[in-house]
Amino acid sequence: MKLDKHSSVPLYYQLKELILENIQTGVYESGSKIASELALCEQLGLSRPTVRQAISELVSEGQLQIVKGKGTFVSSLYERFEIKNFSGVTFSFLNSQKYNKSEIESYEIVKNLEPDVEKAFDQLSFKKDGYVRIRKILSNKTSVYAYIESYIPVVLFPNLMDDIRNERPMVDITVNKYAYLPIKSTSKLMVLPSNIAEGRALEISRGTPVLVIQSRLLSRSENVCEVVIASLRSDICQLQF
Amino acid sequence: MKLDKHSSVPLYYQLKELILENIQTGVYESGSKIASELALCEQLGLSRPTVRQAISELVSEGQLQIVKGKGTFVSSLYERFEIKNFSGVTFSFLNSQKYNKSEIESYEIVKNLEPDVEKAFDQLSFKKDGYVRIRKILSNKTSVYAYIESYIPVVLFPNLMDDIRNERPMVDITVNKYAYLPIKSTSKLMVLPSNIAEGRALEISRGTPVLVIQSRLLSRSENVCEVVIASLRSDICQLQF
Repeated sequence: MKLDKHSSVPLYYQLKELILENIQTGVYESGSKIASELALCEQLGLSRPTVRQAISELVSEGQLQIVKGKGTFVSSLYERFEIKNFSGVTFSFLNSQKYNKSEIESYEIVKNLEPDVEKAFDQLSFKKDGYVRIRKILSNKTSVYAYIESYIPVVLFPNLMDDIRNERPMVDITVNKYAYLPIKSTSKLMVLPSNIAEGRALEISRGTPVLVIQSRLLSRSENVCEVVIASLRSDICQLQF
Repeated sequence: MKLDKHSSVPLYYQLKELILENIQTGVYESGSKIASELALCEQLGLSRPTVRQAISELVSEGQLQIVKGKGTFVSSLYERFEIKNFSGVTFSFLNSQKYNKSEIESYEIVKNLEPDVEKAFDQLSFKKDGYVRIRKILSNKTSVYAYIESYIPVVLFPNLMDDIRNERPMVDITVNKYAYLPIKSTSKLMVLPSNIAEGRALEISRGTPVLVIQSRLLSRSENVCEVVIASLRSDICQLQF
């Protein structure tokens, strides 16, 4: 490795370019572990903040990934978790065949919504009774990959809080509710820097890009029966549709 | 603004937190221009690299945007360019009603494909005659938002190179080709750090996250008639479906 300590190019930047070169030429293989911060400091005679900065920028650019307690790895971009047959109802609560209790982080009635959720409902008569907000965290074998918030108007599903508390089967929750169950959806998908709640739930640092999909689910009666906001870890998730 | 020069917290990090606080509390409004690097240096008695690092990290986290020749702005995350009715055929060449000559950056016959494109075709008999690769750059009023590569087997559309050169209307290109025109698609969507070609085309720095959608378009005869790779600027594009 060659670093020029007399150059006007900052050392952290030189180190960053060097690591990138090693990734792109395959010296550091996809998915492999790289030397620790401390080892890099010693090998190259660099200070800890210099090494830390180079690594942290490569992490935020998606070239490296930090696995807590394990070390720093070259991102294996093409070994992603595939979410198959993705559509606007994929993460819906009302559309699920059954709900997995262990996924549910919290459920409660809320009256004040974030402006974008409120706007998605666009139905003032729902506001009085409020909405059931269900927060879920989904994991695969190796890591947390999605943080989901569902909002369902209490007036359409008045017993939903009790139903969840009593772990009633989905089929009992939805029986006789045909007019209020989702039959179509409109969604928007974007990439946003993660906020504090997403960072905590997805175990990533604030500002790491997340894939956010906001879906409005419409019932046969043309009511918005559920609004779902799914935040996916963009470094490990791939949508197939 | 308060920065503590005697703190063990690096100054660039303190500055970054301060700017973030100003964004989150609305002191810096969404879409507004912030003070220049030089002005920040002078106001706060900081060195240029310190200010530059704080700004560059906020840019890579999506909180700030640099507009070439204009300055640094607070990202207006919710004022995004909406791609409506998005589906796997949205950026297809064969599915387009007409093609806009000014969008086409290049078209040529290629025989060796990137491994993932080759895999998407999964049809060895196409390889002999090669593929027409069409590269397009799409812009809206204010900026470039998408870089598209389409691959179409020469054996299915033997006159395509001439057709494009002669600016023949799409309807003439597709007439009598019913068996080879796209009728369904399968796609995968992911967020990747931009590579050099994407960075150049989209006018962003390498490593900035891009939304990449790879679609395989299938014809009635079950051939993969086109493979499209669309790279979208994730900071300004929003997909609606």
